[in-house]
Amino acid sequence: MTSTPVTRFLTGITTTGTPHLGNYVGAVRPAVQSSLRPDVKSYYFLADYHSLIKCDDPVRIQRSTLEIAATWLASGLDPERVTFYRQSDIPEIPELTWMLTCVTGKGLLNRAHAYKASVDKNTESGQEPDDGVTAGLFMYPVLMAADILMFKANKVPVGRDQIQHIEMARDMASSFNHLYGKDLLVLPEAEVDEQVALLPGLDGRKMSKSYDNTIPLFVPQAEMKKRILSIVTDSRAPGEPKETEGSALFQIYQAFATPEETTAFAQAFADGIAWGEAKQVLFERIDREIAPMRERYAELIANPAEVERILLAGAEKARAEAAPYTRELRAAVGLRSLAAMQDATAASADKAADKASAPPVFKQYREKDGRFYFKMTAANGDLLLQSKGYDNPREAAAAIAALKTQGPGALEAMRPQLEDHPQSMLETIRNALDVLLTLQE
Amino acid sequence: MTSTPVTRFLTGITTTGTPHLGNYVGAVRPAVQSSLRPDVKSYYFLADYHSLIKCDDPVRIQRSTLEIAATWLASGLDPERVTFYRQSDIPEIPELTWMLTCVTGKGLLNRAHAYKASVDKNTESGQEPDDGVTAGLFMYPVLMAADILMFKANKVPVGRDQIQHIEMARDMASSFNHLYGKDLLVLPEAEVDEQVALLPGLDGRKMSKSYDNTIPLFVPQAEMKKRILSIVTDSRAPGEPKETEGSALFQIYQAFATPEETTAFAQAFADGIAWGEAKQVLFERIDREIAPMRERYAELIANPAEVERILLAGAEKARAEAAPYTRELRAAVGLRSLAAMQDATAASADKAADKASAPPVFKQYREKDGRFYFKMTAANGDLLLQSKGYDNPREAAAAIAALKTQGPGALEAMRPQLEDHPQSMLETIRNALDVLLTLQE
Repeated sequence: MTSTPVTRFLTGITTTGTPHLGNYVGAVRPAVQSSLRPDVKSYYFLADYHSLIKCDDPVRIQRSTLEIAATWLASGLDPERVTFYRQSDIPEIPELTWMLTCVTGKGLLNRAHAYKASVDKNTESGQEPDDGVTAGLFMYPVLMAADILMFKANKVPVGRDQIQHIEMARDMASSFNHLYGKDLLVLPEAEVDEQVALLPGLDGRKMSKSYDNTIPLFVPQAEMKKRILSIVTDSRAPGEPKETEGSALFQIYQAFATPEETTAFAQAFADGIAWGEAKQVLFERIDREIAPMRERYAELIANPAEVERILLAGAEKARAEAAPYTRELRAAVGLRSLAAMQDATAASADKAADKASAPPVFKQYREKDGRFYFKMTAANGDLLLQSKGYDNPREAAAAIAALKTQGPGALEAMRPQLEDHPQSMLETIRNALDVLLTLQE
Repeated sequence: MTSTPVTRFLTGITTTGTPHLGNYVGAVRPAVQSSLRPDVKSYYFLADYHSLIKCDDPVRIQRSTLEIAATWLASGLDPERVTFYRQSDIPEIPELTWMLTCVTGKGLLNRAHAYKASVDKNTESGQEPDDGVTAGLFMYPVLMAADILMFKANKVPVGRDQIQHIEMARDMASSFNHLYGKDLLVLPEAEVDEQVALLPGLDGRKMSKSYDNTIPLFVPQAEMKKRILSIVTDSRAPGEPKETEGSALFQIYQAFATPEETTAFAQAFADGIAWGEAKQVLFERIDREIAPMRERYAELIANPAEVERILLAGAEKARAEAAPYTRELRAAVGLRSLAAMQDATAASADKAADKASAPPVFKQYREKDGRFYFKMTAANGDLLLQSKGYDNPREAAAAIAALKTQGPGALEAMRPQLEDHPQSMLETIRNALDVLLTLQE
């Protein structure tokens, strides 16, 4: 048996609205399906910190949190199998947001599409560029990066309009790793599934709350039927052949049906099915998929305390990863317990003498394998760096010279020629190289 | 005995450097003195999240955290009396930072002096305006506001260059209160003490690490003497009268001496004291104040674990305030436990029917005192709003009309005419008024 390498997927939904069929088809259903794959570890979260950016109605946020949580659960997400949590239950996320803020160029954020769109709109209408723009909108990509990086997500399923945000998260992770140590943060990739249907709404435009053209996912049957009956169609009479191309009704059907069902429905269009009848077929097809979940959804909505319990259990699971990882990141940037410091008196004396007291020592030598090596040891004899073998002594000497003249800056490029050292030694190594630099000034 | 109203003072120091005499005279000493006032509740913190903005050297941050903590303690700060903590031990601070980010106009941050100075410098040198500017520099005022607002600080002692940051914190607090409820956040004031000496450095410019002209506070005696001997003076010979005006040496003396000592020193200047002797007098005067603290400082530096213990105890004390307060703020913005929700089925049904099912009821009536009142009750009979008395029935009717036509938006202006209701009822009241608005659409 070979073990499958695990890919981490992460998906969040902002808690400002009530899920509609478009959310279900575009995000919830494919995410639940992917969570069942054996090679995938999945993270799903309710992005309630994000909701604060665009919604100042606390009741709506709370209500939406319940509805979206209940939607995920009713749609088959298994909280035992995946990590399912509410963003605001993870204090490590705002903390990581701040750490990332400090390594993010402001210019990067200036170029974010969503922010630029607001600026363009203001400029066109003669307003100040940042009129009505909150810092929340501007900083949104940093919070999103923290969401992703906190759980070392490899893949983030997004629509095309969100690809830039994943690239920005990669940029931030690279900056952080460059400053504080290789591989501390995992660089995520956008996963754009072209297969996922973009569901049209009642009026044929993309189904979206902002167009007010949605079919809510979990309304009572009668209400859903009423909505479906209001889908806009052309005026062809019963018996007249109908176009499937550009028909919102047909596209919605397709998103729920098997290929065979879709073919049959296309034939019915060609045969001149009446619009009223077509809508009835659509309603029945959707209801066949949704009805079994509707009952579970209703149960959950009637028991907010039960949903809360599930979310808190999920937060505990998420924090079991986030808390130790954050401690590692904190240590990397310098937010460290003082208890772990040695008696600092000696270090203090060094410092007063401009750190000059303890430069590291290089030793170049030849091994029995005939190759040339060097090592760098601390004044106390500790091994700090160990090279791999060079073909000739000049190469080894050049490497030593680079370390002496460029200090810690030379480490990264030289890494392939160095044996691995524990991450925890990195600062000691850097300090030692800094001392050398200081001596040369 | 009358009880004195308590004013909350808050002071933070960024953990990037080693404290020098300028920090001591300008910040540490006056802060320790003010902490002894009976009418003051003081908060002192090590601003290590802030240090990440300008310092990517983890060892320096850790070291500076120890040195600054030891400085406060050696200088007489009593952690039993005040709340003394490290910023990064309070996870509520980055969380509040995010909440404030969402209510802060980006335009406000564009106008921050420190950010504008960077932009101006770039523009002058022909760079892109945001070249090399991190989001950390840009967001600094929001983190600072969170520091202040988290502990309901009334006064923040600052230099003139920091007044704008306090004004920005006020702006953010006002926006938050406007959106989520009056008086949730306390508006701070800048406390600029014109009496506090701005200490000159060795070269006569302001003592500052960036000018490399400092006298470290807790170096060994011999080292301090050496530094003091290097203070720049003019070339007047022993016996020649010396100017006190513009003399860095004299100004530093003044910052440590009593008025009588200062007068005597001025006389010595007039009498032609030799510079070498004047420096010796200065050294002795400073050492008289610093020497007793130096020993305690050395003890603390030698025992980082002891300092850590004190900081963790301080964090516990700080979080005993920050945690419940943050829960209140979270609830205000909508980050709430679902467990506290009623069975939401009814609300859900209401929603499906466009919230129209349960409008509140107004009742206008006359009391025995001859004045006119109204109250608003929920459909279930709960009292939601109770007015104070109006002089005539038309005024009471106009108030009701305003609530009916303007909804929750009318509440704020009307507040003086309403009896207080518990903060926790606010959302119920707003919802009820929203339902009324919906009915009129």
